[in-house]
Amino acid sequence: MQHVEHIGIAVKSLSESNTLFSKLLGVSPYKQEGVESEGVLTSFFQTGQTKIELLEATNPDSPIAKFIEKKGEGIHHIAFEVEDIEAEMARLKSEGFILLNEVPKKGADNKLVCFLHPKSTNSVLVELCQTIK
Amino acid sequence: MQHVEHIGIAVKSLSESNTLFSKLLGVSPYKQEGVESEGVLTSFFQTGQTKIELLEATNPDSPIAKFIEKKGEGIHHIAFEVEDIEAEMARLKSEGFILLNEVPKKGADNKLVCFLHPKSTNSVLVELCQTIK
Repeated sequence: MQHVEHIGIAVKSLSESNTLFSKLLGVSPYKQEGVESEGVLTSFFQTGQTKIELLEATNPDSPIAKFIEKKGEGIHHIAFEVEDIEAEMARLKSEGFILLNEVPKKGADNKLVCFLHPKSTNSVLVELCQTIK
Repeated sequence: MQHVEHIGIAVKSLSESNTLFSKLLGVSPYKQEGVESEGVLTSFFQTGQTKIELLEATNPDSPIAKFIEKKGEGIHHIAFEVEDIEAEMARLKSEGFILLNEVPKKGADNKLVCFLHPKSTNSVLVELCQTIK
């Protein structure tokens, strides 16, 4: 794990939350991007080395829709940048962590990603991400 | 807001979670510290610019005990480093954010801190922190 790449926050309305987080952070989102396979629309704010990613569901089956239904809006996951995602997935699996996907998948913001099951990580949804070169 | 200074995670057992997060992050905690006024025992891991802070309640009235009772273990707050906490508190108050303390208070890890009410921040508990010089 190199650093906290981003923190994902589940929101009901991306446009309302973009306004709120722009005021909070004192910067505007630098990009907005859909990830169709996950059923989400995202926006990103840069704050030092770590980004804030807002996530709005685009359909009722989206993991974000289900999260909000169960827990309400709020912090959804922490993503750590890794140098070599396959090596890190193998290391974590051997340490007893549960991978939610066995092969890296394409995430937002030019990343290969893998999620760890919260039941193996103190109820924290952890994402690994590696920048696609 | 300069950068994400740390992410606070509520845990039931600091010693068990220290072991788990050491495996996850590949580093050991660099310090352990109690904050008596908050009823917490904390430990810190460095991951790039952003720290991971684990929080264990030291008494049943601690905000962390109440959080775990209500929501279970998991991500508790995001803390942003600020240059001048009083100026930032004034700015955020004028933008409509609700401050949970009207004057900065002493937090862990040599910081002056202020929390914002989650109902003004999309259900995200936000902490401002300024390093004490």
